[in-house]
Amino acid sequence: MRFTFEVLVTLKPGLADPQGKAVEGALPALGWTNVSGLRVGKHVRLEVEAADEAAGRAQVDEMARRLLSNPVIEDYRILAAEPT
Amino acid sequence: MRFTFEVLVTLKPGLADPQGKAVEGALPALGWTNVSGLRVGKHVRLEVEAADEAAGRAQVDEMARRLLSNPVIEDYRILAAEPT
Repeated sequence: MRFTFEVLVTLKPGLADPQGKAVEGALPALGWTNVSGLRVGKHVRLEVEAADEAAGRAQVDEMARRLLSNPVIEDYRILAAEPT
Repeated sequence: MRFTFEVLVTLKPGLADPQGKAVEGALPALGWTNVSGLRVGKHVRLEVEAADEAAGRAQVDEMARRLLSNPVIEDYRILAAEPT
């Protein structure tokens, strides 16, 4: 079966996020002054051929750890899978 | 009240995604040959000061449309808010 997963890769709390700061800095000029803590990360969507959801998720977890994220500076989480 | 929202910005279907192709191309060398349709997008997390969740979400929607995404080539969706 084919499952679609989504992986969110975010910078660890406390680490500087210049891209997030740049986006946040653009907000007041557009009239939004009530936004804080803006952080930019990555979103990866992929399809895995697997026997069941648990097997697919285990593989995606390993891929997220070894390839999609840098565990030294980034966290990741996996969103619920949908069979395709 | 302060609400945390997450915005996922993804390339529209059919548009070429060289970054996604590059990541997908690295998978077989790591032993994963059952992955397809890999696409890389952006993840934005932010906090909004708003009267209620609906007001916060409406603002995040406008921000996603006007600043966080390029509506010509990208779609976005907003993940459920958490009060902080």
